[in-house]
Amino acid sequence: MKPVISRSDCPVSYSLDIFGDKWTLLILRDMMLDEKTSYSEFMTSQEKIASNILINRLNTLHSQGFVTKKASPLNKSKFLYTLTEKAIDLVPVIVDLIEWGEKYNKKGQPKSVLDKVLKNKPKAVKEIQDGLRKKRDQSELLA
Amino acid sequence: MKPVISRSDCPVSYSLDIFGDKWTLLILRDMMLDEKTSYSEFMTSQEKIASNILINRLNTLHSQGFVTKKASPLNKSKFLYTLTEKAIDLVPVIVDLIEWGEKYNKKGQPKSVLDKVLKNKPKAVKEIQDGLRKKRDQSELLA
Repeated sequence: MKPVISRSDCPVSYSLDIFGDKWTLLILRDMMLDEKTSYSEFMTSQEKIASNILINRLNTLHSQGFVTKKASPLNKSKFLYTLTEKAIDLVPVIVDLIEWGEKYNKKGQPKSVLDKVLKNKPKAVKEIQDGLRKKRDQSELLA
Repeated sequence: MKPVISRSDCPVSYSLDIFGDKWTLLILRDMMLDEKTSYSEFMTSQEKIASNILINRLNTLHSQGFVTKKASPLNKSKFLYTLTEKAIDLVPVIVDLIEWGEKYNKKGQPKSVLDKVLKNKPKAVKEIQDGLRKKRDQSELLA
């Protein structure tokens, strides 16, 4: 694993050393909530990530152990990415950002996940995480 | 308020449009957990933020309504910053990052707040937020 340049021992700072940017958490969002698994799917997201930024962030997520990567069984030149436990443990952060962003961006469109979050946040986090762990385990069986 | 360039209507993207970088959440951390209120105090943090970045991020936090800013009663050339409700609502994100960062950075030093978080996260979030709201209300009384 590529070492991260660490600014301090603070856990908040450590987190931001890895994913403190405008794009990395959006890729994780796509994998957590929209079931995206491949470069071409990430490229279709509405924020229009540039291909060089996407490749850079996917490489970081892979080298830092947030995703596993393997060739698609149908197309050996296509890679499929699966979230690891390290990334699944970031679901609460994504859910908090959804809750916060919905509250303060009045122009924001409601996300289907939001109703669940507002109703019972711990339950919503657990449901999303359970679904992702199931997918991860299935992906490991296919490996 | 200065408009933010919005990449999409997604609440996660909206959040990162404002504070998706390596520094903004560290300034909020300093205000939330270490009771820092001024430029000179932020400059002493162990991550050694550059003064131009700090000024830029404080301006953004102010123009986006995350902090109020007023001259110190003791020194009119010194500004004191106080968190607004918009920022206090980000305490859950900071607490989640502490929890995640502690789990995955084994070199990290334990923070006093961590024990509380691991014991009862919703209670820890509420205690931090209540303390910050009290400080905000006191600051408004002095205005």
